[in-house]
Amino acid sequence: MHYPEPIAKLIDSFMKLPGIGPKTAVRLAFFVVEMNEDDVMEFGRSLVNVKRKLMYCSVCQNISDRDPCYICDDSSRDRSVICVVQEPKDVIAIEKMKDYRGLYHVLHGAISPVDGIGPEDIKVTELIKRLEDEGIKEIILATNPTIEGEATAMYISRLVKPIGIKASRIAHGLPVGGDLEYADEVTLSKALEGRREL
Amino acid sequence: MHYPEPIAKLIDSFMKLPGIGPKTAVRLAFFVVEMNEDDVMEFGRSLVNVKRKLMYCSVCQNISDRDPCYICDDSSRDRSVICVVQEPKDVIAIEKMKDYRGLYHVLHGAISPVDGIGPEDIKVTELIKRLEDEGIKEIILATNPTIEGEATAMYISRLVKPIGIKASRIAHGLPVGGDLEYADEVTLSKALEGRREL
Repeated sequence: MHYPEPIAKLIDSFMKLPGIGPKTAVRLAFFVVEMNEDDVMEFGRSLVNVKRKLMYCSVCQNISDRDPCYICDDSSRDRSVICVVQEPKDVIAIEKMKDYRGLYHVLHGAISPVDGIGPEDIKVTELIKRLEDEGIKEIILATNPTIEGEATAMYISRLVKPIGIKASRIAHGLPVGGDLEYADEVTLSKALEGRREL
Repeated sequence: MHYPEPIAKLIDSFMKLPGIGPKTAVRLAFFVVEMNEDDVMEFGRSLVNVKRKLMYCSVCQNISDRDPCYICDDSSRDRSVICVVQEPKDVIAIEKMKDYRGLYHVLHGAISPVDGIGPEDIKVTELIKRLEDEGIKEIILATNPTIEGEATAMYISRLVKPIGIKASRIAHGLPVGGDLEYADEVTLSKALEGRREL
């Protein structure tokens, strides 16, 4: 097999992306060959810019094109509450909802002893420092409903309670529009456990 | 929703690729943010190089990083037979097999009256010119087994027969390892039609 070298390199690059195997990489690379030149140049520039122009906000650790980021810098937001999430993507998901007006803190991971990831490997120290400096009243632990996410939430809640800060965990239960019949046992059990009086 | 601008642009670029919708584009863009900087720069360079360094071989119309391409320039290949395919990808597929030692001609499409694509929109003129100039004895029509591919093969075979060149069509039938039970009717009918004495 002999691909022209520029294509071979592009295929290799595509294969580094998640969920893209050799066949898809070849298809995408050949698609790029036929693409409009401006679009390809723009694509190349975007890739480079994502690395060059993005930084981590020194306050909330979210990725941003400025420091502090536009959320930390927004004076209209509620500065007494921090929503703690695992990844920058999670901030976007919560912001989409438009209901939450507080601040964020991105941990960049979750505690996972199996993978050798301890509290010192994620941005917990930075969070605790903020709690002391910024006069925060509540933290909402919005880590993922997985073993790692739960462990991280538990760990942080135990850490902040002694300093008199309220720690809450987002609710687990049936997703809206979901079907009881198809829910797994753990979700169903969490939904029962978290039931509220009407 | 407010993505930092460099990410928003990268998401837009990913969404221009086939089979990549908004959710996958977001996932890929955030993956790039966390990727090794060298890999991202290499990815950007590969994209640009695919546009800048690739050209179409003036003989066979295949994409190549040199003109004539390495196949047209290879003196060990059989110069009396041309395999006609629709896309550069098809050349790669046939080359992978390592059985074919002749030349190629890439049409860059197939005749499709429904989409307004006629013989003048694909590289047929270039093919006919080669047949006259290069002393070709046989052309193998390896266009896709679709309506468009069949029409194109039929059109070209009618064009070359008067000039005394043998035109053959690749066989249609059951794929090796395939199951008779799951074959569609058209393939099965083609397989019967193309049966050979043992």
